[in-house]
This record gives sequence, structure tokens and C-alpha cells, in this order.
Amino acid sequence: MIRGNAPRLPALVVGSIGLDTVETPFGAVRDVLGGAASFSAVSASFFTDVRMVGVVGEDFPAEHLALFRAREIDLNGVQQQPGATFRWNGYYEYDLNQAHTLATHLNVFEQFRPTVPDAYRDTPYVFLANIDPDLQLAVLEQMSAPKFVMADTMNFWIDGKANRVLEVVKRVDAMTMNDAEARQLCDTSNLVVAGHRLLNLGPRVVIIKKGEHGALLFTQHDYFAAPSFPLEDVKDPTGAGDTFAGGLLGYLAFTNDVSDANIRRAVVYGTVMASYAVEDFSLGRLQTLEPGEVMVRFAEMRRITAMPE
Amino acid sequence: MIRGNAPRLPALVVGSIGLDTVETPFGAVRDVLGGAASFSAVSASFFTDVRMVGVVGEDFPAEHLALFRAREIDLNGVQQQPGATFRWNGYYEYDLNQAHTLATHLNVFEQFRPTVPDAYRDTPYVFLANIDPDLQLAVLEQMSAPKFVMADTMNFWIDGKANRVLEVVKRVDAMTMNDAEARQLCDTSNLVVAGHRLLNLGPRVVIIKKGEHGALLFTQHDYFAAPSFPLEDVKDPTGAGDTFAGGLLGYLAFTNDVSDANIRRAVVYGTVMASYAVEDFSLGRLQTLEPGEVMVRFAEMRRITAMPE
Repeated sequence: MIRGNAPRLPALVVGSIGLDTVETPFGAVRDVLGGAASFSAVSASFFTDVRMVGVVGEDFPAEHLALFRAREIDLNGVQQQPGATFRWNGYYEYDLNQAHTLATHLNVFEQFRPTVPDAYRDTPYVFLANIDPDLQLAVLEQMSAPKFVMADTMNFWIDGKANRVLEVVKRVDAMTMNDAEARQLCDTSNLVVAGHRLLNLGPRVVIIKKGEHGALLFTQHDYFAAPSFPLEDVKDPTGAGDTFAGGLLGYLAFTNDVSDANIRRAVVYGTVMASYAVEDFSLGRLQTLEPGEVMVRFAEMRRITAMPE
Repeated sequence: MIRGNAPRLPALVVGSIGLDTVETPFGAVRDVLGGAASFSAVSASFFTDVRMVGVVGEDFPAEHLALFRAREIDLNGVQQQPGATFRWNGYYEYDLNQAHTLATHLNVFEQFRPTVPDAYRDTPYVFLANIDPDLQLAVLEQMSAPKFVMADTMNFWIDGKANRVLEVVKRVDAMTMNDAEARQLCDTSNLVVAGHRLLNLGPRVVIIKKGEHGALLFTQHDYFAAPSFPLEDVKDPTGAGDTFAGGLLGYLAFTNDVSDANIRRAVVYGTVMASYAVEDFSLGRLQTLEPGEVMVRFAEMRRITAMPE
């Protein structure tokens, strides 16, 4: 298919922007740039124009805002408020699939009520990254008929506000979460069952992220299993899922094509973006990433999944 | 490529034949047909002529031998000895990926020294299913220049005889084990690192089985990630890995083609066979399986892994 010029529609990313203190078997970092919206907005910015809604404290380093601006991310929706920035402190042991949380300080996020700037309200592609489901719903209320909304969540909200998470699932076009969260929310160990239960709640797309084991895509008429990109050197998995989701949504917005086939492609672009994110702490690798490198690994993904005739 | 008549070379399967007592969230069975050789020989028999080496006790039910014969499996290498048949007793909880062993009774396997019948010694394709690595090596000594030997192992032998397991790895063309075993034997949490470490020991093919997450294939010049076949209804995962390996080796023997591309196909045929095995306890589903069903799921695997242009 000859596309001509891509539509390149903008994407809105809403979620946490924070400072992470992380230890893995391969090193430790303190108060580095983190948060679901940070990873997903930067990832999406490799594909299309990105607008961001979130909140940071008065201690948020200017260099991080500069990093977003260098990726041409629109920060008019990012409020800077009195108080400290959201912080996460965690570690990974031998098994990099399992994050252990030492502390989560909501700080300025505690009183945060997201306000979508007027100029953002008609954004066609929206990613509600992992935050309180009530805030995700509050953002949705402020949007005027977006074309495609994807949401993520985490075990913390499933534990505490499962009904609100389910309300989000019912209201979005695509829902994504990791395998443990899908098993928990759907009360089944079988991911295929979980995927279909989530689909039955309303979204037309469900994506279950499985870390090193890749991702599963469910739609009404399609099922696609994407492996992860094989890496020998994973430094820090923090933000991999957010980077995946941001790349996926960014690619959909760029192409303005939410057909099943194009969502498959988007899942693979998301996989590629995540594979780079985990090669360094924080957004280190995404800062040096070249678009050509994204294309190289996308081609490689085709090679490692191809079934011969 | 037009193949004309397939070579249909015979395959030899060596390993445990046993009686399993298993409980899963979906039921319980007592003293049913089990053992690595049973699953892998029956699976291989869907593709080519199979010869079996193993031992059963005097209590081994004739109906199980009849089942093997119905699959036209050559049983001249199966000894019946005084004493009780090998028995495994285990259960699975919510997480069907994790088998819990309650008891293993080696019984007649304790004194077993495998003897390869003269008529089997030139079998070109050999699968050394999970047994004591010393027995696997003893079988290899009796073979006259097989074309392709694949071996499997398990944590029990890695715990107790890691050096002998490594000796097996060095002596075979293909080594297969599950993800936890590969991480343990190679002392790394990274499966890509583990795969390459195993390759560096000598085999030209390494296959890491990941249960519901599929399988990873490593060769000197190739890497292939196959997902599992999506199933909503898994009754009993016992024997899935053996069924996978048997289907894989059976397909290679049938086609007599060990090129990287054909090994990819073989991995997918193994995946398909395993997907049927777990649909019922013991070899229940493999007994009713039709070759056409294998073809249907093979085509389905192509569909669920295809990356669109």
C-alpha cells in the first residue's frame, strides 16, 4: 500500500512524571527522571507530535523539562506546583521481571486534578498512562470525542479501586496492563481467558504485556503474539511497559490507522522502543536513540518471528 | 520448494515410561500413562516411524502398550522387568506453569541400563528424553553415527549431576530444557545469555521451552521466538514439553532436513502438538488427535505470528 504523506495526528499522554531511585544488579541511580508519562511521551515522540498532561513539584530539575522540549513535546499541560515531585524507590534482584517497591511518595500527585488545556481537548489519540483511575476518567470527561483512547493501570489500583479500573476498561478503545495485573483483575491464571474477559467489557483492543516474554494482542477478530526483542544486556526494566505503550500509541497516531493489521505493527514498534529503554537507567538510552535504530530493530523483529513457507 | 516424497526417516526415543498421579484445578487422575518417552514417542509418531527404548515394571497395564502399538511405535527396545513401573505424583495449583512434585518412585528405573537393540543402532534421529544423563550418554555410546541427536533434561539432574548434564550438552546436536532449568544451569536470569552459553558448549541448536510463553530457538546464525498456541482450556500441562520435543524431532526425521528454516517449522509443529497434549490428562487428547487437526493449528500459528507488510 502506498500511503503518501502520513496523517501524523497528535497524541496526548497523561500520567505520572517523577523522580526514581532504582537499584538493579547492574547499578543504582538516585532521583533520575521517571514516571509513566515521561517514558511514554518520549517514546511516542519518535513517531508523532506529543502533548503531555501531568504535574511536577518545585524541585523538578529544569534539565528534565529541557529533555522533553528537545523531543518537541508540548508541555503546556504540565503544571509545576508547590511541594515535591512524585517519587518512586524500588529495586530488582536476579529476576528483572519483578520490581520490588521500597517507597512511593505521591507528593504533588496527591492533590493533583488534571486539567486538559483547551488546545488539547480535540487530540485524537490519547494515552492514559498509569495513574489513579479516577484521574484517568476525569481526563476522559474533558476530551471532545477522541478517536482512540488507550489506558494502562497497575496492581496498586486493582488492589484499591478495582471497580474504577473496570470503569476505565469500559470507557476506552484499548486497555493494556501486564500479565500479573490481567490475571489479578480477571481472577484467572489463563491469559487468553483474561484477554477475552477484558474485551467483553467493551474495549476493542486488549494488550497484555509480559515483559521478557513479549505481548499478546486481542481484538474481536484477531489474536497476535509478539515476542520481546532478544537482549543480552538489560540494565533496568523500569519504564519498559510505558515506553512500549507510548511507541504503540505514537505509531497509531502517526499513521491514523487503527485497523487490526496496523495495531499489530504498532505492537511491534512498541516492543522495539521498550527494548531500547531497558538498555540503560532512566531515559538514558531513549535520549541517544536514532530513528534509524528503531527501523533496524523493527526489521529484526520480522526476521525473528518469521515462519518459513 | 517441491519436496516430492518425504524421506520419512525413523526416530528413536529414549526415556521414562511411567504411571502418573496428577491433580490440577480441573481434576485428578491416578496411575495414568505418563513419562517423558511416552509423550514424546506418541507425539513423534504423528510424523514418522518411532522406535522406543525404556523400561516398565510387571504392573504396567497392557492397554498402554496397546496404545503405543496403535501408533505403530516399535516396542522392541522396551524391556518389561520384575518390580513396579516408574511413578510420578504431583499437582498444579492456580499457576499451571509450576509443577509441584509430591513423590517420584524410580522403581524399575533404578537399576535400568538401556540396551539399544541392534536393529535400532543406525537410527538417524534420536531423542534422549529426560532421564539420568549417565543413561543418556550410555545410549549415545551404542548408536552408530546418528545424524541428529536431541536431548532434554530437568532440574533434578541439574541439581545432582550438573557436570554430566553439561557432558550431554557437549555431545548432542540439539539441547532442549525449560526456562527455569536454562537459568539454573547457566547461572543467569537472562534467557538470551543462557541460550548462547549453551550453544557455546557445542550443540548447533538450543531450544528453551517457556510453557505458556512459547519457545526460543537459538542456532549459530539464527534466533526464532515462537509463542504458544492460545488456549482457554488447559486441563493438565504434564508432558507438554515432551510432546513438544517429540513433535519437533518427529517432523525433522520425517523431512530429514535440519536447516535453520526447517528447525523453525519443527518448533512450530512441536508447539502445536503440545497445545493438544494439555487439553486433557495423560495422553487422552493425543489418542483422539487427527493429523488434520495438527495442520489446522499449524496454519493458525502462522496467522497469529504474522507481521503485516
